[in-house]
Amino acid sequence: MHLASLLERARELHPDQPAVVEGDLRLTYRQFSRRVASLAGWMHASGVRAGERVALLDHNSTPFLEAYFAAAQLGAVLAPLNTRLSHKELAFIVEDCGAELLLAGPECAPAVAALLGTNPSIRRVLWLGVPPAGAGGSAYAEALACEPRSERAPLDPDSLAHLYYTSGTTGRPKGVMLSHRNVWVHALSTVAELGLSDRDRWGHIAPLFHLADAWATFAITWVGGVHVVVPRFEEEAVFGAIERERITITNLVPTMLTRLVRHPGADARDVRSLRRILSGGAPIAPEVVREIMRVFRCEYVQTYGMTETSPYLTLSLLKAHLSQLPPDEQFRYRAKTGRPFAAVELDVVGEDGRSVPRDGASVGEIRARGATVTSGYWKRPDETRAAFDNGWLKTGDLATVDAEGYLQIVDRKKDMIITGGEKVYSTEVENVLYEHAAVLEAAVYGLPDDVWGERVCAAVALRVGATASEPELIAFCRERLTHYKAPRTVRFVPELPKTGSGKIQKSVLRSS
Amino acid sequence: MHLASLLERARELHPDQPAVVEGDLRLTYRQFSRRVASLAGWMHASGVRAGERVALLDHNSTPFLEAYFAAAQLGAVLAPLNTRLSHKELAFIVEDCGAELLLAGPECAPAVAALLGTNPSIRRVLWLGVPPAGAGGSAYAEALACEPRSERAPLDPDSLAHLYYTSGTTGRPKGVMLSHRNVWVHALSTVAELGLSDRDRWGHIAPLFHLADAWATFAITWVGGVHVVVPRFEEEAVFGAIERERITITNLVPTMLTRLVRHPGADARDVRSLRRILSGGAPIAPEVVREIMRVFRCEYVQTYGMTETSPYLTLSLLKAHLSQLPPDEQFRYRAKTGRPFAAVELDVVGEDGRSVPRDGASVGEIRARGATVTSGYWKRPDETRAAFDNGWLKTGDLATVDAEGYLQIVDRKKDMIITGGEKVYSTEVENVLYEHAAVLEAAVYGLPDDVWGERVCAAVALRVGATASEPELIAFCRERLTHYKAPRTVRFVPELPKTGSGKIQKSVLRSS
Repeated sequence: MHLASLLERARELHPDQPAVVEGDLRLTYRQFSRRVASLAGWMHASGVRAGERVALLDHNSTPFLEAYFAAAQLGAVLAPLNTRLSHKELAFIVEDCGAELLLAGPECAPAVAALLGTNPSIRRVLWLGVPPAGAGGSAYAEALACEPRSERAPLDPDSLAHLYYTSGTTGRPKGVMLSHRNVWVHALSTVAELGLSDRDRWGHIAPLFHLADAWATFAITWVGGVHVVVPRFEEEAVFGAIERERITITNLVPTMLTRLVRHPGADARDVRSLRRILSGGAPIAPEVVREIMRVFRCEYVQTYGMTETSPYLTLSLLKAHLSQLPPDEQFRYRAKTGRPFAAVELDVVGEDGRSVPRDGASVGEIRARGATVTSGYWKRPDETRAAFDNGWLKTGDLATVDAEGYLQIVDRKKDMIITGGEKVYSTEVENVLYEHAAVLEAAVYGLPDDVWGERVCAAVALRVGATASEPELIAFCRERLTHYKAPRTVRFVPELPKTGSGKIQKSVLRSS
Repeated sequence: MHLASLLERARELHPDQPAVVEGDLRLTYRQFSRRVASLAGWMHASGVRAGERVALLDHNSTPFLEAYFAAAQLGAVLAPLNTRLSHKELAFIVEDCGAELLLAGPECAPAVAALLGTNPSIRRVLWLGVPPAGAGGSAYAEALACEPRSERAPLDPDSLAHLYYTSGTTGRPKGVMLSHRNVWVHALSTVAELGLSDRDRWGHIAPLFHLADAWATFAITWVGGVHVVVPRFEEEAVFGAIERERITITNLVPTMLTRLVRHPGADARDVRSLRRILSGGAPIAPEVVREIMRVFRCEYVQTYGMTETSPYLTLSLLKAHLSQLPPDEQFRYRAKTGRPFAAVELDVVGEDGRSVPRDGASVGEIRARGATVTSGYWKRPDETRAAFDNGWLKTGDLATVDAEGYLQIVDRKKDMIITGGEKVYSTEVENVLYEHAAVLEAAVYGLPDDVWGERVCAAVALRVGATASEPELIAFCRERLTHYKAPRTVRFVPELPKTGSGKIQKSVLRSS
């Protein structure tokens, strides 16, 4: 299927139903489709053709959603850029993908100016709003006034739809190639797994340049649901959007969830419209999950995935017989990484190359294959080859599998610590630190050690007003963990370094 | 995805949950998978390899389900045969697909004997039970005792999985080719559309050799639901299975539904476990739908599809805002042919080659494209080419589209009657006949007429104990229809001729 067909379906089946809400802007599917067609007309008139890359740099916005569909219609490849990246990283990515057209939010003007100064490949800029004073390029109003283009570029189902650059904790960013088929199979699978329908109102709160939220662009359109766009994450804005627009479902990253549940008065907000809240994009501690469930009072679903897999690989949805368990036992499964997502096959493979026993203790690397898995990295045949083993994508994540088939990630393969010959999985240690009342955020990592090979270190951000000392936290861990697993040092930081999707950057901690 | 992966998923996620129930036989997914693996082992040992066709002739049975998965695992192409076909038709199909292995139910012994007498291609018979006295071939117990084979044949996703021979109301039966991808995309779409889950218990009541039921083999396994196998349609057996096995959902053909709702005591049966009842495989009159809803007291979903489309093309599921309407207005949509199924694009094209207006009156031919549409007919390049127009499958069904996007089929293109230059769509006339209290079944068709080109004729089966005369039924129609639409003759028959899937064979009526 062509991704453009999803919007055509919504326009035909739900023409007068709400499609997008952003502040005072309210569009029906007929209006939204019309704007997409005008944007496609503008893009086509400005030379965009099938297979060409179009870069996009913006916070969440209605034009962002429109660009996803206009690019799909033309068969162009949308490359959404992470607004948190440095100008240098952005320049690298734009150069790497060879985009000639840049779609940019007016707030991103400084980055755009820097890009135009360094990237000869960019020939045109379309501002997704009013152009900043003195800036060149076209205004979004010009695109919306363009002759609508309804023609869909004929495409092979495996044609490239998106390039998402991985935030690259090490090395150069790599463009993950996702095809039309990758994206629609993932969207259909989420409809199946999460029971999405035209009753749903999705909160686009996490960044649309990241798949933790971007997948919903296609799934929610497919079912004729409503896109509620929240331009920037801010606690009051999010609670306000949930209350005003009756958001029924959203996928937030753990940092956002942590900030929301600890926001003053969070407990008293009207969040009854929510039927499910998903957490994804980064690991989350069980203690935080308990707080989320208390504040949001709806079904909590842990998700795990990768850009390379469109993104979901697991969901912590409960199987029928598990939902009969007492709440505390249910919670054990809800807070796990989850069981395999519908459209993928997963395997957890030990060092002997065989699937690990389903004992909840043996650790192996998660591997995935299926119709939602990328064909590889843009112009990186070597890194593509290295990412796969006999058709299986190696995720680099280490996990256990329990008797019910639920995975629990214990660490990134490259973050696992070996101290005195013993393996330490950082998640286990971090989860203990999260149990301490003063701890807001914790990261555990290894540093080289002459005696032990590596030593276990922790970086901790404390809650506002709370105090704790290094010896106190070390003692807290030693009471709850085998001795060698407890951190030998604890650093206190105001905030942990994170990627745009909320993943903690241990490489930064290790080198600072 | 490989169809075998769906069963592997169920075995991993739901090993000790019930998979199949047939009378006293109860299998968990672990047991079911083990039997499938043994059958695959037997088939492989007997020479079956990827790409080879395996014919299957049986009523609904547990081995039938097992054969679907064992064939998929080996990459073999299963060709399920319609048990109602004549020996001559069966011989033609087996010859056409070139199957060397025949899997056969013991009750089908006479047909098997006839096939072996005429089909040199068949080299081996595996009885899906105890071999009939004196018959050659192997017993199913022998297959179940075989070394389990877990290896999956590596396959291209577009590899052929099934050949379903269309019942061929005219001409030679044609083998519709469905690929692994056709089948799994359809299965995933049904999970999405119908909210299938491991809480569901599907009634395999309609024949497993026909897609109206066969698709559920894959969808229900995917979600870890229960397959309740009802070997032969008989009213008491069906009600008994619903009551005893707490069937939650099933897809019956209209003939079955008609027989069930008119079964003595139907109103008093315990059908509370049903959450949805689907009708498909043949058109159904609104009067019959009302009776079904009264007896089954659950959500009724009209389905429409073709073997060529895996099969669903539309479902009469209500959009959110339609489900707010008063029951009578809801009913208007529920009894329609339905709105497009998730995985397909539909178009209704008038004689001018353009989409008909969405006015609920203009008639055009339904066309379909998408990932669930067949690539064509087995070894019939000419008929394959003729079935498509610019990538769209021509269904041969005529329909209107209303403002909400719901289709209503008015006739088969070849069954439309032109009398005195006026078009008569047989469904409109049939629906009027169904309103008459004495009418159990009705079919309207055209016969050549020297004066008018064609004249409108009806064949009617009356309810047991009811009476009606030809002039009375003609007058009944004239009161409710434009004069030229009313039948000029009415024949009374004990039962209308039907295909295995319950479609009325108008060609038989025309020529008899």
